[in-house]
Amino acid sequence: MGDESNVKKSSRSDVEARIDFLLEMEKLKNVLRKTRPHGLSRLENSAEHSWQTTLAALLFMPEGLDALKVLKMLLIHDIVEIDAGDVFVYDDKGRADVAEVEHAAAVRLFAMLPEPQSAQLMALWEEFEGRRTPEARYAKAMDRVCPVIQNLNASVSSWAEHDISRQQVLEKNREIENANPELWAHLKNEIDRAPLREE
Amino acid sequence: MGDESNVKKSSRSDVEARIDFLLEMEKLKNVLRKTRPHGLSRLENSAEHSWQTTLAALLFMPEGLDALKVLKMLLIHDIVEIDAGDVFVYDDKGRADVAEVEHAAAVRLFAMLPEPQSAQLMALWEEFEGRRTPEARYAKAMDRVCPVIQNLNASVSSWAEHDISRQQVLEKNREIENANPELWAHLKNEIDRAPLREE
Repeated sequence: MGDESNVKKSSRSDVEARIDFLLEMEKLKNVLRKTRPHGLSRLENSAEHSWQTTLAALLFMPEGLDALKVLKMLLIHDIVEIDAGDVFVYDDKGRADVAEVEHAAAVRLFAMLPEPQSAQLMALWEEFEGRRTPEARYAKAMDRVCPVIQNLNASVSSWAEHDISRQQVLEKNREIENANPELWAHLKNEIDRAPLREE
Repeated sequence: MGDESNVKKSSRSDVEARIDFLLEMEKLKNVLRKTRPHGLSRLENSAEHSWQTTLAALLFMPEGLDALKVLKMLLIHDIVEIDAGDVFVYDDKGRADVAEVEHAAAVRLFAMLPEPQSAQLMALWEEFEGRRTPEARYAKAMDRVCPVIQNLNASVSSWAEHDISRQQVLEKNREIENANPELWAHLKNEIDRAPLREE
């Protein structure tokens, strides 16, 4: 882009802004989570998790929800981890401490996009984080499902690696019940039988 | 699942079927592509590519398309690679040879899901592969965008690694023009200046 290096950021075209954003998104592929993909020894990254979670939400989508809104929310839900990193869902203090960093990351990242898309996606991220609507509550619950399935099928689960108790697993994932009672009943039955420490 | 091991597959509940499908999807995280995420030395996998491509399609979504259909298509577009592997888009013979394997993979994988979802997603995959609708043609074109951005910004591109010519790059990615002429004009300008061999 040699000739254009003295052009102000704000004068970049909408196309260039979106390309810059997609290039920034590359960084999510290097944000590592606590779980491992089934059958692999490496840790999962937040980009592949985002794909599988969005797909899971599609598979279990209830009647009456705005499905497009749910899928959009889950495609962007973790991009703040580019700045904030992945904080284990069982780390309550860490989760509280990182909330401001995540919000600042959302502001920074969505500001890269042209309006009105920038404001629309920021609003969608805040709706998700605040569990403000049925779509947000469903998406939040589905964000819990894939790690539970991974851990139930792992030779060494991230629950065991991080000394998480059965009670913590049940408490942290119970919101799945509101999204899909039958899915939660099945997962709860498996969590009840999993080799987890009791409190 | 000890007690249930003698229960026939066909009698599994819809919830169990979808969980089995999600567990099978884990394998896409181990399908390696030819490109590398920006700034990383490892190869990209098809799960993280699926996330970024679906997000890219959302960012550039034109008025008048069924956005939900586009996002669904791109979430599932590469899952056949679980059986067929990733074949380089510039490998015309390999692409032709793998078409039947990919179709058989789609049949196998979508058959894991309950009806009518199974048939709906199979039809969506075939619509995408056949470029049968405006949504399918847009999704197919957007599937080309992220690798082009990655290669244009790579210290060593997969184009250079695999001895791809400028003419091949232009020919293989020109369908982006129908999806978004301004995006293609920008990318074409960069491809024209990239260090690629001429034929």
